Amino acid sequence: MTGKVTITFEPEGKMITDSPRSVLEISQNAGITLRSDCGGIGVCGKCRIQIAKKYGSISPPTDKELKFLTAEEIAQNIRLACQVKILSGTATIYIPKESRNEAREISGTALEGRISLSPVIQKVQCQLPRPSLEDTLPDLERLTIGVGRIFNQIPLSILTNLPAILRAAEWNITAVFCNNDLIALESGNTTTEMYGVAIDIGSSKIICHLVDLLNGVTIAEEHAENPQIMYGEDVVSRITFAAKNPKNLKKIQSLVIDTINALIIKMSEKAGIEKDKIYEIVFDGNTVMHHLFLGINPKFIGVSPFLPGLKSQVSFPSRDLGLEILPEGKVTSLPLIAGYVGSDAVADLMLTRIYEKSEYSLLIDIGTNSEIMVGNSEKILVCSAPSGPSFEGAHISAGMKAVGGAIETISIEDGKLNYTTIGNRKPKGICGSGIIDLVAELFSAGIITKNGKFTDLSHPRIIKRVVPEFLVVPKEETDTDRDITITEKDINEFLLAKGSLRAGWTILLEKFGISQSEISRIWLAGSFGTHINIENAMSLELIPQVDPDLVVLAGETAVGGSKIALLSGSERESIKKILMKVKYVELSVEKSFNREYLRSIPIYHAISSNSIL
Amino acid sequence: MTGKVTITFEPEGKMITDSPRSVLEISQNAGITLRSDCGGIGVCGKCRIQIAKKYGSISPPTDKELKFLTAEEIAQNIRLACQVKILSGTATIYIPKESRNEAREISGTALEGRISLSPVIQKVQCQLPRPSLEDTLPDLERLTIGVGRIFNQIPLSILTNLPAILRAAEWNITAVFCNNDLIALESGNTTTEMYGVAIDIGSSKIICHLVDLLNGVTIAEEHAENPQIMYGEDVVSRITFAAKNPKNLKKIQSLVIDTINALIIKMSEKAGIEKDKIYEIVFDGNTVMHHLFLGINPKFIGVSPFLPGLKSQVSFPSRDLGLEILPEGKVTSLPLIAGYVGSDAVADLMLTRIYEKSEYSLLIDIGTNSEIMVGNSEKILVCSAPSGPSFEGAHISAGMKAVGGAIETISIEDGKLNYTTIGNRKPKGICGSGIIDLVAELFSAGIITKNGKFTDLSHPRIIKRVVPEFLVVPKEETDTDRDITITEKDINEFLLAKGSLRAGWTILLEKFGISQSEISRIWLAGSFGTHINIENAMSLELIPQVDPDLVVLAGETAVGGSKIALLSGSERESIKKILMKVKYVELSVEKSFNREYLRSIPIYHAISSNSIL
Repeated sequence: MTGKVTITFEPEGKMITDSPRSVLEISQNAGITLRSDCGGIGVCGKCRIQIAKKYGSISPPTDKELKFLTAEEIAQNIRLACQVKILSGTATIYIPKESRNEAREISGTALEGRISLSPVIQKVQCQLPRPSLEDTLPDLERLTIGVGRIFNQIPLSILTNLPAILRAAEWNITAVFCNNDLIALESGNTTTEMYGVAIDIGSSKIICHLVDLLNGVTIAEEHAENPQIMYGEDVVSRITFAAKNPKNLKKIQSLVIDTINALIIKMSEKAGIEKDKIYEIVFDGNTVMHHLFLGINPKFIGVSPFLPGLKSQVSFPSRDLGLEILPEGKVTSLPLIAGYVGSDAVADLMLTRIYEKSEYSLLIDIGTNSEIMVGNSEKILVCSAPSGPSFEGAHISAGMKAVGGAIETISIEDGKLNYTTIGNRKPKGICGSGIIDLVAELFSAGIITKNGKFTDLSHPRIIKRVVPEFLVVPKEETDTDRDITITEKDINEFLLAKGSLRAGWTILLEKFGISQSEISRIWLAGSFGTHINIENAMSLELIPQVDPDLVVLAGETAVGGSKIALLSGSERESIKKILMKVKYVELSVEKSFNREYLRSIPIYHAISSNSIL
Repeated sequence: MTGKVTITFEPEGKMITDSPRSVLEISQNAGITLRSDCGGIGVCGKCRIQIAKKYGSISPPTDKELKFLTAEEIAQNIRLACQVKILSGTATIYIPKESRNEAREISGTALEGRISLSPVIQKVQCQLPRPSLEDTLPDLERLTIGVGRIFNQIPLSILTNLPAILRAAEWNITAVFCNNDLIALESGNTTTEMYGVAIDIGSSKIICHLVDLLNGVTIAEEHAENPQIMYGEDVVSRITFAAKNPKNLKKIQSLVIDTINALIIKMSEKAGIEKDKIYEIVFDGNTVMHHLFLGINPKFIGVSPFLPGLKSQVSFPSRDLGLEILPEGKVTSLPLIAGYVGSDAVADLMLTRIYEKSEYSLLIDIGTNSEIMVGNSEKILVCSAPSGPSFEGAHISAGMKAVGGAIETISIEDGKLNYTTIGNRKPKGICGSGIIDLVAELFSAGIITKNGKFTDLSHPRIIKRVVPEFLVVPKEETDTDRDITITEKDINEFLLAKGSLRAGWTILLEKFGISQSEISRIWLAGSFGTHINIENAMSLELIPQVDPDLVVLAGETAVGGSKIALLSGSERESIKKILMKVKYVELSVEKSFNREYLRSIPIYHAISSNSIL
């Protein structure tokens, strides 16, 4: 490698030092959003940026750039981020708003670009011949012949309006199909408008992306807390509530449907599109979220033998669920794997494509229940580890979600504790990534034992209240005017969670018959995953100890998987086949689980014993 | 022929004189309902009767009877009506309730018996394996494999209850399919219960039959006036009302749906079955009735080029229309032919099967708009003749529907007028068949001219009020204390209607290239048709002049056609192909129509010029 280059991204003002490479690659490494619809291969022209200043050399325009940019634009230093390379020196790159639309969920990977568009929603525009006394074909038969496509029977809601629509449109119409279902008839040529929504229904967070099905671009994103949380943070409480009576089930279903409707309305307003031009929703979620959304009683997921009502991909008219898109539009679920491995895991699979490679990948989607997969193109093993909510900041006295004011990194150097917060605000609490850092650093500094007990209660930062507390941030510095501390109980909570996680992947690797060193890629999925300190996660054995460069912080993969299914009918079909390779491992019936779980709880100072580091 | 026999049917106490023949034939001639599921060929055993008294000889038991009856039953004179013949003398026949269920609509023809049962509704019963930790197949996939049948996607309403249903049924379930749609999941073995409803939606009358799909037997019948009549007797007024605004359309649709629901509830109560065990409705009706029932704006049927919204057979979940059968059950329309030739005509076609014979048939379904068909196995021509409501007693001063108290036959012999009324009550007015008789007899007696004018205003029965009126029944004899009379205007109204009808079949025969004498069968369909005097209808040229034995009074064929479609998926399929042979003739654009119409209005005393009589 030659020397480093330094790039400042505007309007953020974020400065990055990196190796000489394309602006797109540098931006991705830095976690800066930049559209890359084609996956960075120079065929979509969407990643336009402007090189505002430069001291050093940049690559000359490529043929691909000359295809998308005028001479005048090149003179203004407007370039395609995927093509232009910063070869030396420093540069300031301005990213215009229109190059920003892409979602962040696949930070650093831009996998969506590799998907060729083939949505199951299709439009056929045609000018039908006007009827006359010589041509008395009825309206429906005229339409059927006109669109030249065999389709399933027309829905009653369209049929009843058919005579009026055809005449109001002066026989110039656009028919909208979802596979072989006619779902809408629109007046005139509407082939330039075709939208879909991808939704990840998490136990705590619902993420919606509004996608232009004609080019794959995400044109709006919204998320909200899952309001079902009022009936319990964990899925078991929600099962209990919903299973009690049909009214409860209806109530808990309405909560999520109302929230999604609000998000859809917000997105359509932001993007300036009509809701009726949204033709399909593809969603993923864990099995309980999936069932509650569809209104299926989840009771039997909660009791042995833990059966979901179904696992196949299903698709219903949106009006059956009262969703605020085209009433005859479709709501499609990604398939499920097992009672505690839902379609969010399938979405992870679709996005990471670990089933394509002969080498072994490990995928961990951390949540209250963490899904863990080990596999390659031959076979994939999957399990669900009940890791509890501590990674999301819950059940920890000073814990909080990863929002503004949360301490997200912590280091202890020479007895001094340094931290950073999200949004550089005064700290309010500690989020998951901060807790990992804290536990790892406390252990490194000899302040706690491998079992998470304080080694010396007379340590200057240990305050004795009801129980001893380690002072992370004194109240003078906090936003809450209270000390931010951590107790042995908090640490224990965390260690139990990481024990469950470690036991999960250890057993999967064992069953697969491979060792940690054979893993050639680790995917950390989930919003939590994107912010953690990989070295600390490894030192705590939250994840196996491999070359950190093999770890991909994949972010919110799930919604990305739903989006792939939304954009590609063939990917949607192929996942059904891929799932035949997936074998579910029920940890609770594994003989080695208890032994492995107990062994996984303490901290082993892995760093010192690991040859890589 | 030998001498006559006299039969008294009990419990009615109706006495009939007829030629020696089977009890079934005698009952059919007398209009007495008696089941004949197999069409009277001795293979269903449903037409059991008891010969209560006899003075004369009856035929000995046939082999077919011995198959269905025990020696004890034969000793009690229990016999099969289709087999036992009354050879001489008199007999009293008791018809038990269970032999009464069959519909009347196919009086004397029993065509349904020729249909082999193959309903599109099918049940599959199976005991699913119970899940365990070793067999964790989810519910839907367990069901799919269990029923061993590929089906379209499960409806959401069934899916949401799937876990509960399977467990409540202890995994022993019956799946109900309509073609490839799963429409119900029932607990236990319910394969002995499977019902459907056939409906003929007439402009004035709605007829519903509840049918056991397992044996083809009609287990209940109900009818009601079409309440849409409040918005006009003729379809044009109803089009005008419905086309005004969507509220009106909804209102006029609700009227018919509410009426049908009431009839369905009545029938299920009578038959003692649950509404949810009714899985399909097949209906027919003229194009406007069809559109109003489905909620399709009929506006464009009423304006040139008179296009219906569709003509194909369609099928929707009953919940889309709010019908009181299984919510996921189906509502299926018979296909239509043209703007003014609806699925009632298709039903006629299905029941009469004129498309099967190489010989030529003429089918006339008399109503406000009368459908006329001429054809054979090669080709069928069809037209709609706007005959007006006079055949149904409307627009005639003393006219009334064919209900109790209506004069249904009239004869004038030696200057004396004789009449009979429906139910042998005091007369209230004259129904269609009475009007035909009256006009024919008035002409024969020289009281009116061929143009329907009174020849001699000093005739003793002609009363001079505002206009001259011919006294049919003096007020002393009527139920209304008013004279029942007929005016020249009334006669003219009738002649215009018959002119339209005659012009219709004349043009069709002409276009087909055959003469009246080549017709080998005339079907008179519609409830009106069953009561008319064929000779008088011929003398007035309401129908062509052929051997009266070639005329079949087919009765309410339409509901029978819907019933065939309900009972036989293959008949339903084949009708689509048959309709390709049907060519619609729009009378209003036929050059010869006006000439032929004017020529058809006067009475030509055909009897005198006809070689047959």
